[in-house]
Amino acid sequence: MSKIRQNLTNETLIANLKGENIKEYLHLITVDPHVSGTLNNKKVGKKILNLWKKNGLENVHFVEYTVLLSYPDYENPNRVSILDADQKILYQSNGTSPVILPKEQSDPDAAIQWIAYSAPGEVEGEIVYCHYGRLEDFERLKKLGVELEGKIAMIRYSHGFRGDKVAFAQKHGAIGVILFSDPAEVAQEGIDAAHVYPNTEWMPEGDAQRGSVMLTDGDPLTPLTPSKPDLYTSRTIEDAISVGILPKIPVLPLSYRDAYEIIVRLSGKPVPPEWQGGLDVTYRLGPGFREAGTKVKMDVKAKYEKREIRNVIGYIQGEYEPDKYVILGNHYDAWGYGSLDPNSGTAILAEVARAFVQTINETNWKPARTIMFCNWDAEEYGLIGSTEFVEEFEKELNQRAIIYLNMDLISANNTFDAATIPSLYQTMIDVAKKIPNPMESEIKRGRETVYDTWIKTFPSNSEKYPHFPKMKVPGGGSDHAPFLNFVGIPVVDFRYRNATWDEYPLYHTLYETEFTNEHIFDTNNFAVHRAVGQFWAEMARVFADSPIIPFNITIYADNLLNVYAEQLVKDIDPLKHRYPEAEDARKQLTNLIKNCREFVHRCHQLEQKIQISQKSNSNFKDNIEAAAISNKLMAVERCFINVYARPDAPAKRHLLYSVSDKDSYASSVMSAVYDALDTLVHAKTDETKIAAGKELAKQISYIQSGVQCATNTISNYI
Amino acid sequence: MSKIRQNLTNETLIANLKGENIKEYLHLITVDPHVSGTLNNKKVGKKILNLWKKNGLENVHFVEYTVLLSYPDYENPNRVSILDADQKILYQSNGTSPVILPKEQSDPDAAIQWIAYSAPGEVEGEIVYCHYGRLEDFERLKKLGVELEGKIAMIRYSHGFRGDKVAFAQKHGAIGVILFSDPAEVAQEGIDAAHVYPNTEWMPEGDAQRGSVMLTDGDPLTPLTPSKPDLYTSRTIEDAISVGILPKIPVLPLSYRDAYEIIVRLSGKPVPPEWQGGLDVTYRLGPGFREAGTKVKMDVKAKYEKREIRNVIGYIQGEYEPDKYVILGNHYDAWGYGSLDPNSGTAILAEVARAFVQTINETNWKPARTIMFCNWDAEEYGLIGSTEFVEEFEKELNQRAIIYLNMDLISANNTFDAATIPSLYQTMIDVAKKIPNPMESEIKRGRETVYDTWIKTFPSNSEKYPHFPKMKVPGGGSDHAPFLNFVGIPVVDFRYRNATWDEYPLYHTLYETEFTNEHIFDTNNFAVHRAVGQFWAEMARVFADSPIIPFNITIYADNLLNVYAEQLVKDIDPLKHRYPEAEDARKQLTNLIKNCREFVHRCHQLEQKIQISQKSNSNFKDNIEAAAISNKLMAVERCFINVYARPDAPAKRHLLYSVSDKDSYASSVMSAVYDALDTLVHAKTDETKIAAGKELAKQISYIQSGVQCATNTISNYI
Repeated sequence: MSKIRQNLTNETLIANLKGENIKEYLHLITVDPHVSGTLNNKKVGKKILNLWKKNGLENVHFVEYTVLLSYPDYENPNRVSILDADQKILYQSNGTSPVILPKEQSDPDAAIQWIAYSAPGEVEGEIVYCHYGRLEDFERLKKLGVELEGKIAMIRYSHGFRGDKVAFAQKHGAIGVILFSDPAEVAQEGIDAAHVYPNTEWMPEGDAQRGSVMLTDGDPLTPLTPSKPDLYTSRTIEDAISVGILPKIPVLPLSYRDAYEIIVRLSGKPVPPEWQGGLDVTYRLGPGFREAGTKVKMDVKAKYEKREIRNVIGYIQGEYEPDKYVILGNHYDAWGYGSLDPNSGTAILAEVARAFVQTINETNWKPARTIMFCNWDAEEYGLIGSTEFVEEFEKELNQRAIIYLNMDLISANNTFDAATIPSLYQTMIDVAKKIPNPMESEIKRGRETVYDTWIKTFPSNSEKYPHFPKMKVPGGGSDHAPFLNFVGIPVVDFRYRNATWDEYPLYHTLYETEFTNEHIFDTNNFAVHRAVGQFWAEMARVFADSPIIPFNITIYADNLLNVYAEQLVKDIDPLKHRYPEAEDARKQLTNLIKNCREFVHRCHQLEQKIQISQKSNSNFKDNIEAAAISNKLMAVERCFINVYARPDAPAKRHLLYSVSDKDSYASSVMSAVYDALDTLVHAKTDETKIAAGKELAKQISYIQSGVQCATNTISNYI
Repeated sequence: MSKIRQNLTNETLIANLKGENIKEYLHLITVDPHVSGTLNNKKVGKKILNLWKKNGLENVHFVEYTVLLSYPDYENPNRVSILDADQKILYQSNGTSPVILPKEQSDPDAAIQWIAYSAPGEVEGEIVYCHYGRLEDFERLKKLGVELEGKIAMIRYSHGFRGDKVAFAQKHGAIGVILFSDPAEVAQEGIDAAHVYPNTEWMPEGDAQRGSVMLTDGDPLTPLTPSKPDLYTSRTIEDAISVGILPKIPVLPLSYRDAYEIIVRLSGKPVPPEWQGGLDVTYRLGPGFREAGTKVKMDVKAKYEKREIRNVIGYIQGEYEPDKYVILGNHYDAWGYGSLDPNSGTAILAEVARAFVQTINETNWKPARTIMFCNWDAEEYGLIGSTEFVEEFEKELNQRAIIYLNMDLISANNTFDAATIPSLYQTMIDVAKKIPNPMESEIKRGRETVYDTWIKTFPSNSEKYPHFPKMKVPGGGSDHAPFLNFVGIPVVDFRYRNATWDEYPLYHTLYETEFTNEHIFDTNNFAVHRAVGQFWAEMARVFADSPIIPFNITIYADNLLNVYAEQLVKDIDPLKHRYPEAEDARKQLTNLIKNCREFVHRCHQLEQKIQISQKSNSNFKDNIEAAAISNKLMAVERCFINVYARPDAPAKRHLLYSVSDKDSYASSVMSAVYDALDTLVHAKTDETKIAAGKELAKQISYIQSGVQCATNTISNYI
């Protein structure tokens, strides 16, 4: 039996994945738009449940929560009007996206352009152009002498999470926010029909990016606890608004056709050169329009509603270690039809599940550990389904989960890409090397595997590990976040994408329908979808079946010492003379480096033990030593969960990888340390400097504790 | 092999425990006084280390911390003087305990009477008699019109933790505190020589109870993090004083001979009848003395010092599940020679370790799981060694620890007694029934086992479980506390004691030397010590060897529903009409009861599964089902750890069993719920009532989450 276990790769499981099934499942799921909390989405959940059951997963069931969602008025779209001094309408947006392929896009609800958790209301005022709406953009505006107080902020998508943009604008006094996608980002080859959808993947003029602007993960009314109807709801909507998690001002998204009507009228100085967008007009800062008395009116119909959401959960129970879980996750709720985000992933996940069951039925193999399949709901609103699930099952996940493999969507066919943590780098490339390249054009260029295109597109930035493609740290923005940040479970967030840009032009538009997958970027019988599924399945199998879990913690420790800590030295050392308040922090940093060295040393010892163990017994069964080593390897990441380090942000518990407060999408390392450093260099008084210096020392000391825990946990005894 | 595993009881392991070894080890350890942080205690640590190594434990090593301790001036004892109006000394205590058995008690350092963490200093003032110094006593004083502000509080030991007494006195304005043991507690048969030590176990006139008055567990300067020299120390001594963890006023203990000199002079009204103590004089409240101008001067020499402490750790590695730990713990630091507290336990622990190794060497048996032996340092100062250890190894303990078995001391020979949680009740009595009664007098009365005397002395208070002796919930006061409160590890704290009184007269006196063990209460070749060791060893074996860990969670669930929740209903229901603010809480309570019922139901299902599993495979090896069930059983207690429920007291993380703020020694159930209830019924304004009502609902909801987690965790899947 162990022979089958070792040799299964490529021969059976991977071959069993079929593109035509993915295509069929994609159609099944994306035939209607399915925003979370709607009847349509309930139907999709049910379809997935039935599909998984039919395909043989065990114990397939819903895990439900009642959470605060937000909806537009489907009868009365949100509108932006340009009014003259007599309140006469000079221009009005119609608030809906034009249907281009009626066969796939005809549900009127899907056309509505809106932003989830916008405050409802009408506001009138002058426009200020705020570029990307980042903190530095608002600071720049101030320096340029443009006041946002009482004005409507016009903000360009890209370069950050839209929720942060809105929060910054609100903080600077804006009474409303208009978000738009600039052709400079979404129609880079030109806005004429030939160069946009449905002829290319670039965004056509009439659509707009939907999305949520909530500034937290999970239900805003039940922080840190699951939103189950029988538990106490500690927050009201008013509480959530007053703590800044939900905006108190109206927000809406606008197409670039509509945005043009505003930008072309703007008065004020021309924007700084790098702020100029792709519309054929000189962008100006405002405030207001050249024509006296004209202004903008935003009319946002929005309502908060508590609704039921349903995660779909299913299993393949492990043969020897049923209490150890390898978790595969994707969400199924979408802003529209969702054929890219997220149902390219949903369809693949269903096929991965089916292929596993088929393989089990056709061979005498079963995975040694349990494989858990998760299809999340309400991800789009703020990772709600997965966050509530992690809050409810935190203890079980802490004890049982080995790895969480997230695949949200495929957005293009250029290359594989992954965000993960260093202990997974080696296994990631080992698996990617096994997966045939889905693009014939790439194979023709000699790149036969997924890995080959990947390393070519994102070459290593490490001299020591030239064979590792550049992999980012997992940020927020998809369902892996609570698994890593809240519980300390190693995660991978992977996809196929374009080579140059993290987003994609049709993101959250009406045009995420099957046509796009099938005719725009995966024209070869869903070969890209299939390859992604093969990667997913093989990753799951490797983690479910290897007697010693393939976490390479030596690489993890090496990164801690030679990348993270080294960078911190570079950032803190220059403060030596200017900031005597950082003296304690510098001492802790010296100690941290010692701790990291000790960790590296201990990892090398363990590695030798692993090699000997693997030689002497490659079976899963009766392999007490492998089980003991696996327990230690699994425990390492948990060491970096610290529930006390950030009392102000209690959900951000990972010392190394929790997301920065400044950009909820971005990934960062040791964000609490860097926040303290930031506070120190911006402190104005001696008292605040001393406090910031103490905080910095304390935060570094927390990291030390994590490293010491990791070192202890892989030792023979405590 | 499994046959030996099952039948080992009584035949080998228990028989291998020898009273003469315990006697020898006790002598070895108690030959010198050994306060934590002193050279003497370092020597004791080393002796234990060597003894364990010699006796065959594996990987015996120190785990060291550098922590804030406190010492007297050994050259200049603390003194209380009674001064007349001209500052002439009318009486002065000498601050030392009289040596009674010079052979065992001659080290002058041991005679010093002092209180750890007292502030240093001299204060002069009038005395107010404050009875037991409980909150209600200070309130009573107020009602009686006696003002404590600027006075010295004279407080009787007993009925609560001395640290709380001092904190309450300080809060009420006292400038110093004198603690004394009243003959009503410590010399109940009379204070004449015939009725006190060394002729009996009652306290003679010249000694006083030593102890710590720190109001936290663990090093006061490094809350929640281990006190390792390379980590950052977040608090200063001044911080610790200003947050109220260390007193800012001087404190000293006084013998009842010295206390008499004060009490006999007191003016003011006679105390309420129940406040009258056992000295032959009418106790008066004060303030001050009858003779005008006389007052009391306290002169306390105390110093804070950072010193090294050393826990001793050793192992017997498990054969099949080396990563699961059964932990046995006792501390070895003492206020004096420590022959009762704690070295009666230390000697037994060493013998338990030796007997295990002997048994392993003589048979072909080894425990399936790892047994870990812990000898803590600095327990007396505030559970410092164990708390720092739990802080440092929290993650490992969370993952690995099955049970923590604490035995601090034996204080008398009357009966076995234990504090534990309901899931352990059944195994406790199963094991106690296997241990022969060490008292011949009891055997003569037909009580042949430890259990027989135990159930006779502390009969059940449950109709449903008449065979369970009354077992208290584990409170603070010994090293089990951080294991249960901080990590959620099931604990037992057990001892032999007298039948009527939780403390013992010679507690923390100079007279805790071998003579007391050997000639006062365990005269039959250390039979009581041996029986306690046999219980300890057999408990450890049962938890290390049973394929399914013997936690009875059905009894746990039943207690939750029918004892804890039922009591809460009784306490909250009467508020229905007077407190509409408790409406949400009453709703949550109804939900809680439903949750508990579901938990009970699920426990019954699991129980059936356990029975079937035990019938079909009683082996440890290859018993995947037993391992899976054990993992679930082990996970239940962890469900009641909630790091968010008490942001004001972050170390008190156990929803059910964390200790009340009002008495750091006492055990209580759901203390945060009851604290919220208390706040509600004492609230004066509508606003505070509403806030308290919300807090109450929220706290009950946290308990629900714990019960739901427990229910989920024992299910087949999440």
